[in-house]
Amino acid sequence: MLLSMACFPAASIPMKSIGPLKFVGPEIQDALFLPLATYEIPLWASVRRGARVLSLAGGLYVNVLHEGMTRSVLCEAEKAEELVPILAELETLRSEMEAVVAQTGRFVRLQDFYHESVGSLLFLRFEMTTGDAAGHNMTTKAAEALLNWMLIRFPKLRYISISGNLCTDKKVSAINGLLKRGKSVIAEALIPSPLCTRLLKTTPLQMAALNTKKNLVGSILAGSTRSANAHFANMLLAFYLATGQDAANIVEGSQGFTYLESRSEGLYFSINLPNIIVGTVGNGKNLPFVEENLKALGCWPDPNSPGKSARRLAAIVAGAVACGELSLLAAQTCPGALVAAHMRLERAVHNGT
Amino acid sequence: MLLSMACFPAASIPMKSIGPLKFVGPEIQDALFLPLATYEIPLWASVRRGARVLSLAGGLYVNVLHEGMTRSVLCEAEKAEELVPILAELETLRSEMEAVVAQTGRFVRLQDFYHESVGSLLFLRFEMTTGDAAGHNMTTKAAEALLNWMLIRFPKLRYISISGNLCTDKKVSAINGLLKRGKSVIAEALIPSPLCTRLLKTTPLQMAALNTKKNLVGSILAGSTRSANAHFANMLLAFYLATGQDAANIVEGSQGFTYLESRSEGLYFSINLPNIIVGTVGNGKNLPFVEENLKALGCWPDPNSPGKSARRLAAIVAGAVACGELSLLAAQTCPGALVAAHMRLERAVHNGT
Amino acid sequence: MLLSMACFPAASIPMKSIGPLKFVGPEIQDALFLPLATYEIPLWASVRRGARVLSLAGGLYVNVLHEGMTRSVLCEAEKAEELVPILAELETLRSEMEAVVAQTGRFVRLQDFYHESVGSLLFLRFEMTTGDAAGHNMTTKAAEALLNWMLIRFPKLRYISISGNLCTDKKVSAINGLLKRGKSVIAEALIPSPLCTRLLKTTPLQMAALNTKKNLVGSILAGSTRSANAHFANMLLAFYLATGQDAANIVEGSQGFTYLESRSEGLYFSINLPNIIVGTVGNGKNLPFVEENLKALGCWPDPNSPGKSARRLAAIVAGAVACGELSLLAAQTCPGALVAAHMRLERAVHNGT
Amino acid sequence: MLLSMACFPAASIPMKSIGPLKFVGPEIQDALFLPLATYEIPLWASVRRGARVLSLAGGLYVNVLHEGMTRSVLCEAEKAEELVPILAELETLRSEMEAVVAQTGRFVRLQDFYHESVGSLLFLRFEMTTGDAAGHNMTTKAAEALLNWMLIRFPKLRYISISGNLCTDKKVSAINGLLKRGKSVIAEALIPSPLCTRLLKTTPLQMAALNTKKNLVGSILAGSTRSANAHFANMLLAFYLATGQDAANIVEGSQGFTYLESRSEGLYFSINLPNIIVGTVGNGKNLPFVEENLKALGCWPDPNSPGKSARRLAAIVAGAVACGELSLLAAQTCPGALVAAHMRLERAVHNGT
Repeated sequence: MLLSMACFPAASIPMKSIGPLKFVGPEIQDALFLPLATYEIPLWASVRRGARVLSLAGGLYVNVLHEGMTRSVLCEAEKAEELVPILAELETLRSEMEAVVAQTGRFVRLQDFYHESVGSLLFLRFEMTTGDAAGHNMTTKAAEALLNWMLIRFPKLRYISISGNLCTDKKVSAINGLLKRGKSVIAEALIPSPLCTRLLKTTPLQMAALNTKKNLVGSILAGSTRSANAHFANMLLAFYLATGQDAANIVEGSQGFTYLESRSEGLYFSINLPNIIVGTVGNGKNLPFVEENLKALGCWPDPNSPGKSARRLAAIVAGAVACGELSLLAAQTCPGALVAAHMRLERAVHNGT
Repeated sequence: MLLSMACFPAASIPMKSIGPLKFVGPEIQDALFLPLATYEIPLWASVRRGARVLSLAGGLYVNVLHEGMTRSVLCEAEKAEELVPILAELETLRSEMEAVVAQTGRFVRLQDFYHESVGSLLFLRFEMTTGDAAGHNMTTKAAEALLNWMLIRFPKLRYISISGNLCTDKKVSAINGLLKRGKSVIAEALIPSPLCTRLLKTTPLQMAALNTKKNLVGSILAGSTRSANAHFANMLLAFYLATGQDAANIVEGSQGFTYLESRSEGLYFSINLPNIIVGTVGNGKNLPFVEENLKALGCWPDPNSPGKSARRLAAIVAGAVACGELSLLAAQTCPGALVAAHMRLERAVHNGT
Repeated sequence: MLLSMACFPAASIPMKSIGPLKFVGPEIQDALFLPLATYEIPLWASVRRGARVLSLAGGLYVNVLHEGMTRSVLCEAEKAEELVPILAELETLRSEMEAVVAQTGRFVRLQDFYHESVGSLLFLRFEMTTGDAAGHNMTTKAAEALLNWMLIRFPKLRYISISGNLCTDKKVSAINGLLKRGKSVIAEALIPSPLCTRLLKTTPLQMAALNTKKNLVGSILAGSTRSANAHFANMLLAFYLATGQDAANIVEGSQGFTYLESRSEGLYFSINLPNIIVGTVGNGKNLPFVEENLKALGCWPDPNSPGKSARRLAAIVAGAVACGELSLLAAQTCPGALVAAHMRLERAVHNGT
Repeated sequence: MLLSMACFPAASIPMKSIGPLKFVGPEIQDALFLPLATYEIPLWASVRRGARVLSLAGGLYVNVLHEGMTRSVLCEAEKAEELVPILAELETLRSEMEAVVAQTGRFVRLQDFYHESVGSLLFLRFEMTTGDAAGHNMTTKAAEALLNWMLIRFPKLRYISISGNLCTDKKVSAINGLLKRGKSVIAEALIPSPLCTRLLKTTPLQMAALNTKKNLVGSILAGSTRSANAHFANMLLAFYLATGQDAANIVEGSQGFTYLESRSEGLYFSINLPNIIVGTVGNGKNLPFVEENLKALGCWPDPNSPGKSARRLAAIVAGAVACGELSLLAAQTCPGALVAAHMRLERAVHNGT
């Protein structure tokens, strides 16, 4: 580990643990500090405010609804006609396919697959569970085994690519939202009106109206794809970097929903993150600061409960996103607040305060 | 600067300068090493191979076609009917608006604006030039000044948000591709067939077919939005981190095109990056390793040529993306190559070799 | 005309004029009956209810904000590098291009153009005004003249296609919404709460909540593109068929917005139709029933005011859409109402009542 | 039937049966004339040319891969937390749900469902088989029964809407392509090069290049959603009108793929239509000309084989689309051909020839 640090010079990105944020729900009942590495220093204050409000509101409910890493392979036949019986047969071979996958690793398991043909092209999107790993490599290796197995099993198929872009890895898509990729996480809280007024300088009505007008109408107008939020990507990037994740997955991660309602009890605040791709083992996890951060979050892999630490980490991601999203939306309901806050915070940072 | 390093612990991300890559075209005629910070170590070897091939092919032609940072504000009237004369009048007030913007900073200038109304909601997307800065803050400050000016000039308008999601900042959208955000950069090269065979272990025909089947058909199938590439996000992330950029902008950046043709002379390879958001001043640029990297790239801001260093940096981004994209596509034409390469490289890294 | 009727057998689609709907705004101050041809008979009752409510609410404000028919051509050079100076020069040749277009017809005028290159491919989207015609053929003819002119003017360009799919004609796209195609029309009304309760069996609060949850959130979830409405396509189809329009343009037309707010005065109801493609001359307009319908709507072309009758027709389209949209949304707020209404109406129709 | 004709005046749309087109594959082995009702007369000649080429090439292979009509309902709970156990329980109640559906009609059967929650909102998309009906009403009625059953079974749920826009009915979406709606149909043929040259005035190479550049790259550039074709909507509209279908479903229908390859044997031509929504019973089918057309196509419902006639009709739709698509693409490879053909045909029509 220290070796890797010695081998390469490093990009040293300012990092801070922000919080605490109180979590409730089946995955975590705990108050945690969220590590965030970023060049955009004002993000810390923004997340801190959100964490304070959500904690005072009784905590953020978080739940991981689904998990499964995906990789799509691409092959072709001479004609679409030839693909029809192959696809029909494939449906009957699930257990054989599961065996092919399981042979490639201790933790990887085939969970489901989706296929689609265009002319003589066949796209197969495999979904796998991958233990505590984010699972890019594990899934690719298993997909390659499946592909090789298919090419032998169905001699009419020819190899085109180990990835057919239907995965979809680090690219914008509708499929990842509809069929999910990585962990699908939801989070919600009910924030009493006085908290909104006192700490967020806004009201549930203003917040709900802003969300409808900006995040819903605005995102549709912009031609967004299955996505409506203010800035999920900022928190994802900072948290992913601090915990050794492949941060290019913020592209998928940025596609999710913020949904608010003004209710008699206060502000109903929720986010929906269908594509959280994190792991607690694999590339980057052996760096000392990453290990330290993962342990502080209670996310060090436990060999007796494979997958548990990664699920917990995904739930915490939702916490970081929720805090930053809540805080920015509140700031945007107030004319001048956003620019003023940025200026103030950046001045403070540059003065070393 | 060293102060910032002292104040905060840091996420230290492995970094290496890869190359050299020979550039041709109006922005750069030079061979440069590309700094890339990433947890995904195999990326370095991939980019290195691409750089070698593109350099041997005579260099990568790169051109920055357009620049302009955007921010959209959101306000509303009582009725759509009230917006009609306001929008008509706004068109006649361009010089006044330009003056409002220019007063907010030495380098920011209003370049254009786009508006759209939905019911009584009015979305205005301002496009500005911002010198050597990526321009998020500069543009937001100027947009706020414009918004304040509008609210006074047109008393029927009410403030809703300093950002209406039509910007579109760090989110998936069609508008950024169609109307551009940041720098719009293209790059191309013609790679002789023998180079393809010898160094990329593939042929122009295989590469062009893969691009059509995977990047074009596959991306459409996945429900991607105005985007067709294999993995722009990986190179963008690594380069942005190494040069102090706000890497959350890889979300927009990931939306772009790879277009290949098999020609009698060899492989025509091109990429199109409509949303490259980089700067050579601003947050992150004062970190020592960032300064060092920017200077090594010849991208240190020159007060006598504002904007020049940022444009050069945007052109270099396209170089990093081109190298990684070319190399991965080549690997994907060969069954087994991708997985084998990953395994080999990661083993090497973990062994400290 | 009668000849055409004699030549071909006909698909006879049930047609009825529904209304009256009171219009206000700059295009029409009139109460009109809306001709609708459809196999889906319940649509008539739905539109009738909407027309009654909107008329009693003081009328529907309608405005045509923009007009311009588009066609994109596609050509290519050897390299992207060659396209750069061509595009720069093209910007300086607008008046020459306008002359090329004007020579192709009495009513067609070049209004604007948008271009985009991908590698060595050049897409040019021309926007033209076309008098009282929807303008498909007029625009195609003019685009062909421009393309021929370009191929001569810039010998490095080669012809690929008279249509590059960026038009975008009868296909889903974001570009038509962002840059518009045909007529861009808005409509709005403020419906007092008692009218909602009495005639629509709903409340402004229920309606606004439904629109947010179904049309906004639901459309985003579905992976819609720049669109949020309940069933624009139904009214567009019926109205287009009854007035001799090319009804395949309901594909673009179906992409638009319904935006509602619950206000102290009642329900704020608005729709936004960026791509209404209609004409009062051209294919289909010479059929007797079409002529009759257009005349009844006051949309017969006046040689002294070219374009006026088509604009009026586009405004009326928005009326038909508004009535059906309002009525269906109201029905959907009431459990059981939609199914019951359909059953009742269809029974009535089949019984000949 | 004659009663309906008498009750209402009718929009009489010119109609012609074009062909014959030879079909091969499991659904049809027959040469059929395709009825097309349209105001755009040149469409007939275009389809006729395509039919001739495809028939001479040995016939068009057509296959219906999947069928299932969908309707999504929308309800809500107090919190997302409450939805989690409901969704888990729902998965265990499939047979009860199937019974609820089956009680609503003789032909409707629950096939599958998809759910998604956003905050406290729950969207459920039910997929049903509907015999020979397109199934809009049948599915809505069954969905209403399911919704009522759910509201009783899970008292924490509240009704929001019988349609949550995730259906997605007559609107642009990614979900219909990914999860299908109606019939999913493919068609393909291998057209020998001499046929291309002689009858289409083009070559396989030109056709394949056009498809890649226009239908793939152009559609992505336009911001299309899961769709890449030239003009599916035109043929769908004309065929739907002639066979009594709800032609507003061309919106979904227009989203599909054309995929071509130039091969040594000639042109590989294929289309993919994931959302063909047609029936042989229901609204419109009792009009005399519709009955006549359906019978001529061999698509009159057989009580002993429910669903068979609708599947056959869907396969024939693909034939009409294939003919028109092939012919237009060929025309677009030839400079000037499209405009010339339109002019010539329209002149002929207006002269009564």
